[in-house]
Amino acid sequence: MEFTSIQQLLAAYQSGDITPADYLYSKWKKAQNDQHNCWISLISEAQLDGYLKALRNHKPENKPLYGVPFAIKDNIDLAGLQTTAACKEFAYTPGQSAFVVQALIEAGAVPLGKTNLDQFATGLNGTRSPFGACKNSIDPAYVSGGSSSGSAVSVALGQVMFSLGTDTAGSGRIPAAFNRLVGMKASIGRISCRGVVPACRTLDCVTLFAHSVEDIEYLLPIAGQYDSGDAYARDFSESDADIVYLSDAVRIGVPKTENLEFFGNADFQRRFELSKEKLAANGAELVEMDIQDFLDAATLLYQGPWVAERYAAIEGFFDEHETQCEPTIQAILGSAAKFSAVDAFNAQYQLKTLKKRCDAKLKTVDAVIVPTSGTIYTIEEMLDDPIQKNTDFGYYTNFMNLLDYAAIAIPADDETEQMPFGITLFSDQGSESKLLDLAKAYAANKAVSVGESIDETMVIAVCGAHMEGLPLNHQLKDRHASFIDKRRSAPSYRFYALAGEGPKRPGMVRVNEAGVSIEMELWEVPTSRVGDFLAGIPSPLGLGKVELDDGTWVTGFICQASAIEGAKDISSHGSWRLYLTNNS
Amino acid sequence: MEFTSIQQLLAAYQSGDITPADYLYSKWKKAQNDQHNCWISLISEAQLDGYLKALRNHKPENKPLYGVPFAIKDNIDLAGLQTTAACKEFAYTPGQSAFVVQALIEAGAVPLGKTNLDQFATGLNGTRSPFGACKNSIDPAYVSGGSSSGSAVSVALGQVMFSLGTDTAGSGRIPAAFNRLVGMKASIGRISCRGVVPACRTLDCVTLFAHSVEDIEYLLPIAGQYDSGDAYARDFSESDADIVYLSDAVRIGVPKTENLEFFGNADFQRRFELSKEKLAANGAELVEMDIQDFLDAATLLYQGPWVAERYAAIEGFFDEHETQCEPTIQAILGSAAKFSAVDAFNAQYQLKTLKKRCDAKLKTVDAVIVPTSGTIYTIEEMLDDPIQKNTDFGYYTNFMNLLDYAAIAIPADDETEQMPFGITLFSDQGSESKLLDLAKAYAANKAVSVGESIDETMVIAVCGAHMEGLPLNHQLKDRHASFIDKRRSAPSYRFYALAGEGPKRPGMVRVNEAGVSIEMELWEVPTSRVGDFLAGIPSPLGLGKVELDDGTWVTGFICQASAIEGAKDISSHGSWRLYLTNNS
Repeated sequence: MEFTSIQQLLAAYQSGDITPADYLYSKWKKAQNDQHNCWISLISEAQLDGYLKALRNHKPENKPLYGVPFAIKDNIDLAGLQTTAACKEFAYTPGQSAFVVQALIEAGAVPLGKTNLDQFATGLNGTRSPFGACKNSIDPAYVSGGSSSGSAVSVALGQVMFSLGTDTAGSGRIPAAFNRLVGMKASIGRISCRGVVPACRTLDCVTLFAHSVEDIEYLLPIAGQYDSGDAYARDFSESDADIVYLSDAVRIGVPKTENLEFFGNADFQRRFELSKEKLAANGAELVEMDIQDFLDAATLLYQGPWVAERYAAIEGFFDEHETQCEPTIQAILGSAAKFSAVDAFNAQYQLKTLKKRCDAKLKTVDAVIVPTSGTIYTIEEMLDDPIQKNTDFGYYTNFMNLLDYAAIAIPADDETEQMPFGITLFSDQGSESKLLDLAKAYAANKAVSVGESIDETMVIAVCGAHMEGLPLNHQLKDRHASFIDKRRSAPSYRFYALAGEGPKRPGMVRVNEAGVSIEMELWEVPTSRVGDFLAGIPSPLGLGKVELDDGTWVTGFICQASAIEGAKDISSHGSWRLYLTNNS
Repeated sequence: MEFTSIQQLLAAYQSGDITPADYLYSKWKKAQNDQHNCWISLISEAQLDGYLKALRNHKPENKPLYGVPFAIKDNIDLAGLQTTAACKEFAYTPGQSAFVVQALIEAGAVPLGKTNLDQFATGLNGTRSPFGACKNSIDPAYVSGGSSSGSAVSVALGQVMFSLGTDTAGSGRIPAAFNRLVGMKASIGRISCRGVVPACRTLDCVTLFAHSVEDIEYLLPIAGQYDSGDAYARDFSESDADIVYLSDAVRIGVPKTENLEFFGNADFQRRFELSKEKLAANGAELVEMDIQDFLDAATLLYQGPWVAERYAAIEGFFDEHETQCEPTIQAILGSAAKFSAVDAFNAQYQLKTLKKRCDAKLKTVDAVIVPTSGTIYTIEEMLDDPIQKNTDFGYYTNFMNLLDYAAIAIPADDETEQMPFGITLFSDQGSESKLLDLAKAYAANKAVSVGESIDETMVIAVCGAHMEGLPLNHQLKDRHASFIDKRRSAPSYRFYALAGEGPKRPGMVRVNEAGVSIEMELWEVPTSRVGDFLAGIPSPLGLGKVELDDGTWVTGFICQASAIEGAKDISSHGSWRLYLTNNS
């Protein structure tokens, strides 16, 4: 049986359509027969039995990933299997799993093995590995994308349900695009990097590949548990609470035509235009944006001193085993020595300046859309020009790491095309919930429910000086209240012009007979601001429940009956505005 | 006339006791006659007249610093005067003032000139200047502290009311301690560094010196206006909103004895003990804390690659004019070249790891107290051993910049001592409001009002099922409400047991005659939670104003009079609890 979502698989287990043992064994077999150079190592049959046995001690309902098979990029530790980072001479066997791997296993997921990558996660194409170039899942003549090549291809080929990659410059997004998957590079520090061979420690992210945005959304809270033991981990629990959109229509930044680069791939260019049209058709407001500053930040990554981080990550090993590294990697890491500490700080200043400008632009939209990659190449084309063609792939991805943005790469074609095209939505760090929302809507070809995502509010019915244009209306507007509707109360009130100081006010007193209907306005008020609004309301008025003319009850102004002594009964006007007009 | 606070001076202007022209001219004269090597340059008489003329176009009430004289450390630009950074060969004349200087001038403050400093702000002692060692304001045989030496001494000597310094490793705090002033090193990015000669751009802060915490508190919002044009500026407007203390007693971290270092100065050691006792006597809970991780972070600063930032700041100048630099500075900057980009990144990883541990410790207390400096030296002692003795001064200050903490240095002796001792309170970035609160309380020798600083709350009077122990009380407690008092209403209400579903409830209806007094409970409720509390209150009840038996009005439950039809008058019980007891 084939399943393409975690929920489908869990339902099949639940219904007894298939057992975890049968399913996981079949996937493990499939991985063993892989012809795409996906894997560097697989767990043994005994190890698989061990995972199955451990699962039997638990109820499926307590394990959100019960029996879900996954793959691990081979620069992330899994206890008991070698970590090679695609370099045999570098390999070591870790005693414990990476924090994120452990979290997934504890949630019931079963790791089938370690996947192929561009050596030391340095590359975006998937050919830079002594374990063989990883082949594209759709057409094996094409590159798979990298560096998380095997992790993407193993999901695309149905050998596992999801996988872990890493992403320092695009490695968690390019392979998603090239294999028609969803790939999420969450904010730096969202998913723990403890137990991961670093590429650039200040930028590294562990990433997720899956078939759908829904699967990523389901996985992120499990994989993204805060790790206080990782120096670069950040706690995003607060930023997850609310998704705030800037306005009623989703505002999506789109790069100016001059910013775009498709390296001659007219097909991808056309499909990017279609992606924008799809967003617009679903109600998004497309905002043209000059992203040159973003692109400038990207050039810092490969031309600047960050390469020293890659060297720092494996310094001891590289100094002794330089010649055993893949030739391109050797050339890249070998260039690290030329950068001084002064260079490193100067580049950080440049980045900070660019980031300030980019952040300001980003604040004007809810997210930005870019192609994930402007083009794709065959393995042969790639090997002919391994540096430049790799650089091409990073055109839209490199800057997001340096600028500390979160990004989600999603398929953006109709699957009838030969090679897949993907787009990436990105926004500020901590914006994962919003990006998932936007990506789900895009995938489902529907509009985003912006309205559902704003602050909690409540409706308050007003009948006097708080109505639009009247002296106390500012008390509502100061609290970001917005007008909803004009309505009338149920015919169950008497209406009085109250005596007393300050702005003239009426009071609605509920009566059991001879009531009239009063003109009211409904205002939507942020719930958190109602308290201090209430604090300013003097006796005899208060807030309680008011009945509208359709029989519904809303929160609104009420009045203590004791105050009608000495007050003028103005019920015949049925409206404070009318009363004011008639008595001015 | 001598004034030691901004408010005193403004009041004297207001009352006409002195004119800005007379006062500023007398201060300018005093600065001209300075014998402490405070100044590198002063404004001309014509420039002073220009500032006075500009002031005359404005009303004092529109200029919060109207006619207040201040000094500017000579690594911060003032249009029209040279910026030397205490190196004549480096000097340039800026066309415009630094952002912070401009903000102060626009607020009415008048800069009298540029003050002496350790060259390129590299030092903590005040002797490293070709303009002469700046002398201590209390005893000129002693060092003034640095690098912001002249800025501190000019305030201490009454030549100006406040001043601007900078602080990369302690330069805004050590001179405060040595001259019995308050010095605030706010968070990195709080006060704009645009128009400042960088020392270490990732760490630099502009700082404030004044006679009192109150003056600093008054100055910070003016000096700390957010500058979107400074790449390192951060917007702290949100963190300023609320001061949150961890518990009812202020928790102050105090270093373990093994962490402390007084370099043989038993007097300072004794005075630090007295400072702790003073805090404890004012109700603070002292929490012993091992600050070794903090101290370890400090060693990274001077022994690690951050020195490359100092070199990067003046690279072009230094390469051509190395021999014209002060010899100690020359030695320090000359060492920058030995650090590689790999060193720079490795040190950043170490720092990140230490910061994680330090942050975790910091989260357990409201602030930490340390000596600002463990000792003080004479100028002669200093010049005998210029590197080591300077390092001694940084023992407690260096780590705060690297760890991104905010700090305030305040005097901590009784002014009868010969040389002043100071303490520093520090906490996380963005904690300025809290630190100012704590420092004000310390200076005034009183307890901090922790209670005043928690979330905004309001009092709600309840008379029925919301009272302690009754079925709906949880609606209050769920919203973090706390019981304040039992009270009775004014004798102006009738009390009814209402009909209807759900928990039994009473209603208090205000009447103009035959009213009785009703038992009530006052609860303190976070204002932001009142809205959803209100949303759950059904008709005929609501929240309005209730009169208590002392004639005050509080927010509380009111009831629409229409509901008394069919309700039982229970006024004779005067209490919902009594009614329940008598009818159970």
